[in-house]
Amino acid sequence: MSSVKIGLLGLGVVGGGTWDVLQRNATEIARRAGRDIEVVAVAVRDTAKARALLGDSVRISTDAMEIVRDPNIDIVVELVGGTELAREWVLESIAQGKHVVTANKALLAKHGNEIFAAAHERGVMVAFEAAVAGGIPIIKAMREGLTANRIQWVAGIINGTTNYILSEMRNRGVSFAEALADAQRLGYAEADPTFDIEGIDAAHKLSLLASLAFGIPVQFSKAHIEGITSLAQEDIQHAQRLGYTVKLLGITRARPEGIELRVHPTLIPADSMLANVQGAMNAVLVHGDAVGQTVYYGAGAGALPTASAVVADLVDVARLLNAAPEQRVPYLAFQHDAMADTPILPMEEVQSAYYLRLRVDDRPGVLADVARILASAEISIGSMIQEPAGDHADIMFLTHEAREGAINGALSQIQSLPFVRSAVTRLRVEA
Amino acid sequence: MSSVKIGLLGLGVVGGGTWDVLQRNATEIARRAGRDIEVVAVAVRDTAKARALLGDSVRISTDAMEIVRDPNIDIVVELVGGTELAREWVLESIAQGKHVVTANKALLAKHGNEIFAAAHERGVMVAFEAAVAGGIPIIKAMREGLTANRIQWVAGIINGTTNYILSEMRNRGVSFAEALADAQRLGYAEADPTFDIEGIDAAHKLSLLASLAFGIPVQFSKAHIEGITSLAQEDIQHAQRLGYTVKLLGITRARPEGIELRVHPTLIPADSMLANVQGAMNAVLVHGDAVGQTVYYGAGAGALPTASAVVADLVDVARLLNAAPEQRVPYLAFQHDAMADTPILPMEEVQSAYYLRLRVDDRPGVLADVARILASAEISIGSMIQEPAGDHADIMFLTHEAREGAINGALSQIQSLPFVRSAVTRLRVEA
Repeated sequence: MSSVKIGLLGLGVVGGGTWDVLQRNATEIARRAGRDIEVVAVAVRDTAKARALLGDSVRISTDAMEIVRDPNIDIVVELVGGTELAREWVLESIAQGKHVVTANKALLAKHGNEIFAAAHERGVMVAFEAAVAGGIPIIKAMREGLTANRIQWVAGIINGTTNYILSEMRNRGVSFAEALADAQRLGYAEADPTFDIEGIDAAHKLSLLASLAFGIPVQFSKAHIEGITSLAQEDIQHAQRLGYTVKLLGITRARPEGIELRVHPTLIPADSMLANVQGAMNAVLVHGDAVGQTVYYGAGAGALPTASAVVADLVDVARLLNAAPEQRVPYLAFQHDAMADTPILPMEEVQSAYYLRLRVDDRPGVLADVARILASAEISIGSMIQEPAGDHADIMFLTHEAREGAINGALSQIQSLPFVRSAVTRLRVEA
Repeated sequence: MSSVKIGLLGLGVVGGGTWDVLQRNATEIARRAGRDIEVVAVAVRDTAKARALLGDSVRISTDAMEIVRDPNIDIVVELVGGTELAREWVLESIAQGKHVVTANKALLAKHGNEIFAAAHERGVMVAFEAAVAGGIPIIKAMREGLTANRIQWVAGIINGTTNYILSEMRNRGVSFAEALADAQRLGYAEADPTFDIEGIDAAHKLSLLASLAFGIPVQFSKAHIEGITSLAQEDIQHAQRLGYTVKLLGITRARPEGIELRVHPTLIPADSMLANVQGAMNAVLVHGDAVGQTVYYGAGAGALPTASAVVADLVDVARLLNAAPEQRVPYLAFQHDAMADTPILPMEEVQSAYYLRLRVDDRPGVLADVARILASAEISIGSMIQEPAGDHADIMFLTHEAREGAINGALSQIQSLPFVRSAVTRLRVEA
């Protein structure tokens, strides 16, 4: 069979890794795919550097659109990043009847609905395994491996930078600022780490996972997002003493009233699978009504792991290049005309257990007042620790599950009590 | 689109679970598959019991062959188990041009090559996600999710019964016999637990994973198999003190000379992902040259988790019912004409690190003699503990990686030393 012709946009970390994997494992890949996968054209800014890497057999251009419109190309692989130019290239690729493989979670989080609608209309595939959790085949697991299930919830460590920082804070007792500086020095965090540490990157990925789980449109703008920048070392330590580890989780869960969609630091039991995910690794837990709990673990970033996912998509797309649309797996797991309009719940409606830490004056009646406020908001307390801290005291509560709105109301009352000395810390807990 | 017609052989635990999942999640499944999946006929021994479960709309027969030959049926789902009748039904289904879904690892371990060859010849699919690790989509991950990789090794906890027993031995300090009796009482082990505790079931599954990893024919008969029946509580405790947990692993690894294929109790680092797999859960680690280490975790058995895998296969097969063979994923991950004849290494050629325990007379020169034998076999020692045990002493070694043949030679010499008091215990270690 003739080879499948690839146009590659971008030759950075992931683009270079994809080229590398396609070359060195060419035989292995063809033995599986049944045909060769050949990069015939690459769009880059620096053509000299690209020429040195690619040799003479590949066409190199500085004009992505020219490659997108090349009639010889079957599949466009978008590995440039960004959301505006990438959107134009991807939409034009689709208009040209080409299949698309992308690792661009920001693009799909922002423009996924538009892109999938256009691809559906034109009858082409858009594959994005590399957009979530790097080399872990989590998109495939959710789109194809768990099709028998009513998926109930998904919780993922889907940002390696923040997991590295949290692992360092826990294992070495360093502050957030120190751990971030280390992560930057070691290349686990970028010079401007905002997208990672503020939880935005995780929310991009989570909004895709929610669509795959529940058959809803991509709704990044409705995600509740909290990063890890204000996480204190002492809360990590308290959590540890209570038997928990703090992780930045993306959580999406089906409730009778709608879907929870949230990224925030979360206490999880120290002996759970996700708690043991160390360093920059990723893991995603998917709970289905038939299968129960499944977990997928691996490298969430890096040239070769991400390329592993890009090339797996290429093999899938190559197999079904000329298949009828109904023979292909739907973009977001559910058939395009069978998507649901289940609402995303506002954060006030979300239900969770909570960890609360209060710094209070160390005098009689304090605990009684706090307990009374929690009780009148119908928030029940699972466990409590009080300990002296100089001339004041720290009180840590673990609550049972409650509505976020109820917790917010109670916290604002507690905050205004005269003996509460500083802002109340509130972290969510997953059992 | 018209519904896909299923003939179900067997309505036991997994058959009943499959029926259940197809009924209760029918809408969800059709929203994904794009068409209904309908069980039209079931073969069982007890028709009255089946009728009570299935109602009147499904044809019930005591003759599996009749269902296999029913021209209305698109896919035969074999969930009876056993290897002889099942082989006949599956081969006849293929001859009739029907696709097959099976959960039967023993069948595929024994007759897989014959079955896949017949299916290839006839142009039909044989899907078997449920045959390995229950609900975990590990076949899909290896066949499709990791196609970019040269897979280097696979290590799996792929038998829930033995993992339950080992978890109990570790967590509660009970003997193998006690843990087995508990497992039987709780339904985690069968009345005749031989297949599980002797490692045979794990070896069935491992021989399939090896084929998927390396593109070799199924070679169950060449697997080295050791169960857990002679595992002593004291070795579990020593392992724990050395920082290890003992798990029954199926391991397959590509070496330059050939492929290792072995099931045995194994010491693995206590903080590794696999070490934290508790109870009857399963997990499979796959190491690829691009992706690095990935792990897949979930329920390895049970009605609904196994049904989850069966139904996922049904959705896959339903999508590609009339696709051209080259559009389908190859049975064993690699194209039928691109399989390799890489040899399975004899156990003597396998390389591993080892844990050794010797009970010796507590007198001078003992350690020197043992160390001399290991040194002359070029086995280097990573760490050692000696401790008094009444009037004798126990010595535990952890060796660096060595050839199994060299260890065997050294052990037989050590065993014949006059001061060695009982059989030397030898367990393999994975880093």
